[in-house]
Amino acid sequence: MRRRDYLQNPVKHMKISGKLTVNQLIQQFKNSGSFGAGRLAAACDIYEKMVRDKDCTVFLALSGAVIPAGMRTLIADLIRARLVDVIVSTGASMVHDAIEALGGHHYKGNSVVDDRELYKYHIFRIYDIFVPEENFVRLDFKLAEMYGEIAAEKKGESLSSNEFALELGKRLKDPNSILRAAYEEEVPIFMPAVRDSEFGFIHWLHSSQQKQKTVLQVDAFKDVPLICGICGNSPKNGMIVIGGGVPRNTIQSAALASKKGLDYGVVITMDRPETGGLSGSTLEETVSWGKMKGEADHVMVIGDALIIFPMLVASVTERLGNDFKRVPYFSGSKIGA
Amino acid sequence: MRRRDYLQNPVKHMKISGKLTVNQLIQQFKNSGSFGAGRLAAACDIYEKMVRDKDCTVFLALSGAVIPAGMRTLIADLIRARLVDVIVSTGASMVHDAIEALGGHHYKGNSVVDDRELYKYHIFRIYDIFVPEENFVRLDFKLAEMYGEIAAEKKGESLSSNEFALELGKRLKDPNSILRAAYEEEVPIFMPAVRDSEFGFIHWLHSSQQKQKTVLQVDAFKDVPLICGICGNSPKNGMIVIGGGVPRNTIQSAALASKKGLDYGVVITMDRPETGGLSGSTLEETVSWGKMKGEADHVMVIGDALIIFPMLVASVTERLGNDFKRVPYFSGSKIGA
Amino acid sequence: MRRRDYLQNPVKHMKISGKLTVNQLIQQFKNSGSFGAGRLAAACDIYEKMVRDKDCTVFLALSGAVIPAGMRTLIADLIRARLVDVIVSTGASMVHDAIEALGGHHYKGNSVVDDRELYKYHIFRIYDIFVPEENFVRLDFKLAEMYGEIAAEKKGESLSSNEFALELGKRLKDPNSILRAAYEEEVPIFMPAVRDSEFGFIHWLHSSQQKQKTVLQVDAFKDVPLICGICGNSPKNGMIVIGGGVPRNTIQSAALASKKGLDYGVVITMDRPETGGLSGSTLEETVSWGKMKGEADHVMVIGDALIIFPMLVASVTERLGNDFKRVPYFSGSKIGA
Amino acid sequence: MRRRDYLQNPVKHMKISGKLTVNQLIQQFKNSGSFGAGRLAAACDIYEKMVRDKDCTVFLALSGAVIPAGMRTLIADLIRARLVDVIVSTGASMVHDAIEALGGHHYKGNSVVDDRELYKYHIFRIYDIFVPEENFVRLDFKLAEMYGEIAAEKKGESLSSNEFALELGKRLKDPNSILRAAYEEEVPIFMPAVRDSEFGFIHWLHSSQQKQKTVLQVDAFKDVPLICGICGNSPKNGMIVIGGGVPRNTIQSAALASKKGLDYGVVITMDRPETGGLSGSTLEETVSWGKMKGEADHVMVIGDALIIFPMLVASVTERLGNDFKRVPYFSGSKIGA
Repeated sequence: MRRRDYLQNPVKHMKISGKLTVNQLIQQFKNSGSFGAGRLAAACDIYEKMVRDKDCTVFLALSGAVIPAGMRTLIADLIRARLVDVIVSTGASMVHDAIEALGGHHYKGNSVVDDRELYKYHIFRIYDIFVPEENFVRLDFKLAEMYGEIAAEKKGESLSSNEFALELGKRLKDPNSILRAAYEEEVPIFMPAVRDSEFGFIHWLHSSQQKQKTVLQVDAFKDVPLICGICGNSPKNGMIVIGGGVPRNTIQSAALASKKGLDYGVVITMDRPETGGLSGSTLEETVSWGKMKGEADHVMVIGDALIIFPMLVASVTERLGNDFKRVPYFSGSKIGA
Repeated sequence: MRRRDYLQNPVKHMKISGKLTVNQLIQQFKNSGSFGAGRLAAACDIYEKMVRDKDCTVFLALSGAVIPAGMRTLIADLIRARLVDVIVSTGASMVHDAIEALGGHHYKGNSVVDDRELYKYHIFRIYDIFVPEENFVRLDFKLAEMYGEIAAEKKGESLSSNEFALELGKRLKDPNSILRAAYEEEVPIFMPAVRDSEFGFIHWLHSSQQKQKTVLQVDAFKDVPLICGICGNSPKNGMIVIGGGVPRNTIQSAALASKKGLDYGVVITMDRPETGGLSGSTLEETVSWGKMKGEADHVMVIGDALIIFPMLVASVTERLGNDFKRVPYFSGSKIGA
Repeated sequence: MRRRDYLQNPVKHMKISGKLTVNQLIQQFKNSGSFGAGRLAAACDIYEKMVRDKDCTVFLALSGAVIPAGMRTLIADLIRARLVDVIVSTGASMVHDAIEALGGHHYKGNSVVDDRELYKYHIFRIYDIFVPEENFVRLDFKLAEMYGEIAAEKKGESLSSNEFALELGKRLKDPNSILRAAYEEEVPIFMPAVRDSEFGFIHWLHSSQQKQKTVLQVDAFKDVPLICGICGNSPKNGMIVIGGGVPRNTIQSAALASKKGLDYGVVITMDRPETGGLSGSTLEETVSWGKMKGEADHVMVIGDALIIFPMLVASVTERLGNDFKRVPYFSGSKIGA
Repeated sequence: MRRRDYLQNPVKHMKISGKLTVNQLIQQFKNSGSFGAGRLAAACDIYEKMVRDKDCTVFLALSGAVIPAGMRTLIADLIRARLVDVIVSTGASMVHDAIEALGGHHYKGNSVVDDRELYKYHIFRIYDIFVPEENFVRLDFKLAEMYGEIAAEKKGESLSSNEFALELGKRLKDPNSILRAAYEEEVPIFMPAVRDSEFGFIHWLHSSQQKQKTVLQVDAFKDVPLICGICGNSPKNGMIVIGGGVPRNTIQSAALASKKGLDYGVVITMDRPETGGLSGSTLEETVSWGKMKGEADHVMVIGDALIIFPMLVASVTERLGNDFKRVPYFSGSKIGA
């Protein structure tokens, strides 16, 4: 590279006046193009490309407590607009969704508080959110019933985690529910660590209740070929990661096992690479594995997902306009085909 | 509190001269008692208390790529000395262990490297560690064989994740293997997200190979009552967390579901609470849920586990001395009883 | 507190559709009210209160390379709209401003690059920004001239750092310059560590050139009573901190020394409290010192300033509307009075 | 590079048994060579090389509240053993040193505490350290006296920050004082932001008291050629950075201005590069500027300085042995020569 090649694009300074829309602000970020602002602007461009690319299946990885913190409707709406095709989630996020689908709420609280008093009051804390125990009691009771129903219908057949999510979505009637929207829109929700959540304890409850009758079976490994099949059958694959952990790893591994490699990648996280964990690993590292293509469009945005993801969605929604209608390549009805 | 109560313990400044043992350094940290040094010294005291407490079952949560990075023997030795009683691990950590048990190695590499070249060379990168693809090929082949064997023996019975780990440990002969040591010492290894690792893809391979014969069944939910039973039957419970994620959550949830609450907690992580994820959540937060007792001894050490955990082990090992023989309250043979 | 007091305000989930303005998005953040979104919404409310409070002097702390990264015009415009009254800056930020005032540019680059090649090409890197050496050469030459002029005018009198900044602003004609805007609008710029920047090396150059004539004198301590006087004379004081370091400490110390304590505080940073540095220290900690009042409105937003600060400004600008005209309590012409 | 070149050095797993000295543990870290353990082992090797290199001047950058937290004696001892040659410090660190030199103490406290109560009690908090206000009262009174004495002796001559530190060290008699040890051992202490600390407010107090008599003058820029001269005259230069900020920047800038470039660099910090601040910037970035040589030995250790720095010192001290006597190339008596 010649010297002048390094000095092509001067930073254009942001200018803020009057009423800026979110996407206009993102355009200012793109003009400046540096640090987090540059990365966020790149993320918006990549997500826009993903949803406009008729050959691309869009995977969303969900981790962290973003559902109780305010992103439930946002994600349900993304599903209904089919701006995501496949979700890979922690069990907990779907537990949080189901709690609200059954009429429960999460409450704005405070991170500096006497946790011993909360304990006495049967109020659980998630950073600055409070959750009353009765939310979980209602969930346990209602879902144990559903487990029984599902088990009866399935007659001993083992479910994969996405089939399990589908059965829950079928039974939850709240239109703002992620599980419900995904059921209606044929967006599969994989929960590779489903056991590590209230769903696991409800299963224990259910299996105690049901001793004489059929117990719901969920097979730990059954969803592996299913998610790999989605990647493998899709001409292109892209992922948006909120957080990291098992959901990010599952998508990346499916891209590897299906020998496709991701074509697009956006990761929103506060984790960093230096301690070697997957959540903070760079997207360059994924290239060495073949999880992502060497020429893929990709960026990591270091920041709080509750700020960054809504900006990403607002910016891209604004770009797409009201008339945009995405025709997804993939549909959940094709799973396993 | 009176004013003077706040001003009781002057910081004693560290003094370093001659040859200090690790525990002597930790004593200096305790004398100074501030910032990370104070927290690490507290962690050593808490771990020492845990292993000396005859009523306490010690849970170790393993996440992140600490096994390829050099902690494999360290953890196998902890198991053999029965300074841990139960392990909750990502699938990946046990994959890394099995790779070495089958003769593979991880290699010291570099984090600044051309990942496209690594890809061409079939070398996978984990931050600054390199892993040749043949490690995985050998693993896939050998373990698919084992899966077949296990399935044949179990005749359609679904395993829990710890039973699956036990079956692997039985078949891996390397004495430095964590899976092997755990098998021999009756230390159960739970892998609540076992599917999210090479174990999942080997299962896919195995089930393709085995179409006509029995396929290995692992039940997603079967280990829930088992780990809860361990907590519930143990007079006291303590955890040491490396990283966070599913392993930390699983232990904490078991403590909650068994209505015991942890008595001791040490978390080593770089994650922070502000974005609401579980891995960075404070141990105070766990008190609100009843996952940890209000009066439990607990501390979070913010740091790289590859530095902090070996210091913790070296300090406590030195304190215990060569003649110390721990008689654990819990043994894996009692699981499910 | 009663149980129900903890459960007053349900999280309202964000809803994104059509074109959202930045402030409409911030309102969604306020409705959800959790994690980073809640903190950023609180920051917008506090900054709005500060500028609407006729008795409040608004201090802005500038650290990190936010000027080359795209916030130069933004801050110059804030000064011209008198939405800040006093700036406390690193030397480097004003060096970056002066470089552009003299016709230089910063360039969008890349953080993954061969730094040895950049060195050969005389291109300096600031994360993903490239700066050609000629920027500094021009700066050195021009400013050494200005130093000579200033020294001649001042005839041996020692300047304080803000007087030095004022003299530079007087001589830089670029209307987008922060130094210029501050000069014109009578917004003092303090640079408590002015020596730790190119300004220091230009002084060395200047004093070599000037051996026979007067050398510019800048007194390290002279600005202390000046900034304390501003705090002391203002009925209320508020600060907005970008980053931390010396600029944050200087404002907080002035609030302490003037026995006022800040009434408002917003800190935007990625630093955390656990290692004991000032930049990551909580605003609660400042209360113990009397740097901030116990009842002050305050919040720390953990995030990248290049994203967070423009959002803050866009939201508050939108709220204030085009007709808002702030009449500041403090003017730089009153300094030292 | 050929494939096999990437796969040369297998990770050797750590083995911990019996009593390990700190350096033996560091050797285990070197054998494993990955993540933070690998970086810390490299840091020990680099510091050992620096002190054994007869041509190398060792700069130590001090930021953050490491002195009150327990590293005061450690650093005084390093000075007395002449394992550092030049210190660049925040003002605050030397304020903390002086407070203890005058008989004050810092107290082990707690980071979760009612800061309003501390305020009422006149107790200041630094994360989990408590400092009673009387420490500062005594300091203000005693140092204002010293300022008067120094001013009287200097008769209007402006001091550089290191001359100011020297005058303080001459007057503080505590042998454990860093300022005192540095005075006795001719190790200059530069405080480029001296004004941003209690030293600044004491100057205000002093200049009010002294109105009729001579006021102490400290020139902001006078130390620039002095520190550049040290770098320029030394065949090689190395730095160890605790934290970052102004101290790190000052050393790096001196290496640049003297056209030498550092030969060795160790940085201990929790800051990261992504938001563009200097404290988290990589050492590769400094190569582009010429602040560090392209071939320099360098490493950044991400961690808490209260843990990492004592380990570094303990390891290197153990390696050097009791009989090691370093003959430094540079002495403070040569400053400005």
